[in-house]
Amino acid sequence: MTKNEFPRKITIREVGPREGFQSLSQVVPTDDKLELIRALVSAGVKEIEVTSFVRPDKVPQLSDAEELARRLPAHAGVKYTALYLNQRGFERAEASGVFQNDAWLYTSPSETFLRHNNNAGIEDLLSQVPVWASIFSARQKSALRLMISNSFGCAYEGEIAPKVVVYIVERYLSALASVGLSLHEVCLADTVGMAHPKSIEHCVSAVRSLGVPVSLHLHDTRGLGITNSYVALELGITTFETSIGGIGGCPFTPGAAGNVATEDMVYLCDTLGIETGLAWREMAQVARLAEKIIGRPLPGRVYKTI
Amino acid sequence: MTKNEFPRKITIREVGPREGFQSLSQVVPTDDKLELIRALVSAGVKEIEVTSFVRPDKVPQLSDAEELARRLPAHAGVKYTALYLNQRGFERAEASGVFQNDAWLYTSPSETFLRHNNNAGIEDLLSQVPVWASIFSARQKSALRLMISNSFGCAYEGEIAPKVVVYIVERYLSALASVGLSLHEVCLADTVGMAHPKSIEHCVSAVRSLGVPVSLHLHDTRGLGITNSYVALELGITTFETSIGGIGGCPFTPGAAGNVATEDMVYLCDTLGIETGLAWREMAQVARLAEKIIGRPLPGRVYKTI
Repeated sequence: MTKNEFPRKITIREVGPREGFQSLSQVVPTDDKLELIRALVSAGVKEIEVTSFVRPDKVPQLSDAEELARRLPAHAGVKYTALYLNQRGFERAEASGVFQNDAWLYTSPSETFLRHNNNAGIEDLLSQVPVWASIFSARQKSALRLMISNSFGCAYEGEIAPKVVVYIVERYLSALASVGLSLHEVCLADTVGMAHPKSIEHCVSAVRSLGVPVSLHLHDTRGLGITNSYVALELGITTFETSIGGIGGCPFTPGAAGNVATEDMVYLCDTLGIETGLAWREMAQVARLAEKIIGRPLPGRVYKTI
Repeated sequence: MTKNEFPRKITIREVGPREGFQSLSQVVPTDDKLELIRALVSAGVKEIEVTSFVRPDKVPQLSDAEELARRLPAHAGVKYTALYLNQRGFERAEASGVFQNDAWLYTSPSETFLRHNNNAGIEDLLSQVPVWASIFSARQKSALRLMISNSFGCAYEGEIAPKVVVYIVERYLSALASVGLSLHEVCLADTVGMAHPKSIEHCVSAVRSLGVPVSLHLHDTRGLGITNSYVALELGITTFETSIGGIGGCPFTPGAAGNVATEDMVYLCDTLGIETGLAWREMAQVARLAEKIIGRPLPGRVYKTI
């Protein structure tokens, strides 16, 4: 194949405050979370996933979602986002009054993962699409996005074939079309770090062929996080979800350490001449702060060199 | 540019027993080193750099070089190698009676590094080429190889331009030609982990244009070790020096952690359909053993998932 030119510029969505703090056994104090978020904002990060509106008894690490939302630093040009798994979570996120949430739908090609994580199967989720459509419509949400966990592999089901992901996207496109909606983005998440250069190439190409913009959320579990990001940049992907210091991981996968570290991704882009709007040394300082807050060395690499 | 086909097969030289154990503050018992070497051999590793014949008072971690050499497990098809910095070290390696050493010359484009590491400058080293030539000739060494430390960057001198590396190689080729010798290999070592995809591409291409086969010795200090290896595979490089568990690092560079981990490299190759003669899960078990011997988690990624 012929390499594309690398994109001139990419967007990095920081997910550390949500995914990182969620994955810890300890509960991080709200003040510490806010200190990290302020540092990210000061360093120039423009989009931050700050929490998830899930059940406080199930995920005590994020039970301060409302308080955190209330105390987020206002900053022009910074977009805060949050996750939710169901309508109750979505309404809580909306009621928090801070989030300029895009509308997200969450799914997975792994039925087993969905049963564990969402307590529902793929057909259940698809049957809810019209319900979500009317909720989003009532809230004037226009940009509809689809997050696909375990797009490349699953701890329960092993490697996932791109055609299964394509099937899921097609089903969603069809369900959405029947209520007059389309997708603005599909985010392919490598939740357990099983993606590799060839599967990135195949899956990204296959989903793109459906005419939907693709973004990536990659983990470094097997040491290929940055390499997969490099391959995705070669393919012209321009939106990546990363986590400061590489904090994060799937709570259901033993030893599944680490999202791609934001500062390592910024460093890679810097060497390739790709703009991120961020400086890696400054981001490395923020990773140092994350390490201090969490109290142990984090998976990220480049921050340890400053 | 157009991507090359990936090579069908590569050779992995394991350097963990030398570089890994040398970089530790603790001295690893000879029995433990031998246990790791036996495990590497059992897993199918065919070339292992086991020690360095340096001054025991300067590098107590490798003061057991002679004993280790004497006790190495004999195994058909396995090649043990060792480093040396000077003629005394070379003669000790030869006298150990075990090594089927190729002849290596060691240099660097960083004058400052050479002064620290070799207590000599580049011109001093070049002036010794005829001396080495007669030593190698007396020992019937035919395959002459050149190791270039800090080929991509140096803790003292920053990023190193490919043209400086090319200049060094040209000087060696010329010095060797004057005594009737040529180079069978140039190993570009990213001693402090400053290489990145573009510098790999530029430096490898530039040195190759001199007609010498290139191998790589890469570190993961800034998180690009595996990505740089991927780029090198795209360029058709077929010989890599890696370290089990990612142990190793430059003692002169604070925080400069880790060679590319052998098992992570094997895993990458496996996903690309490139033969290494090794199985990543088996190599991951050996990394587990290395972790047990060293007594703390190692930088390698994939071994933590088994």
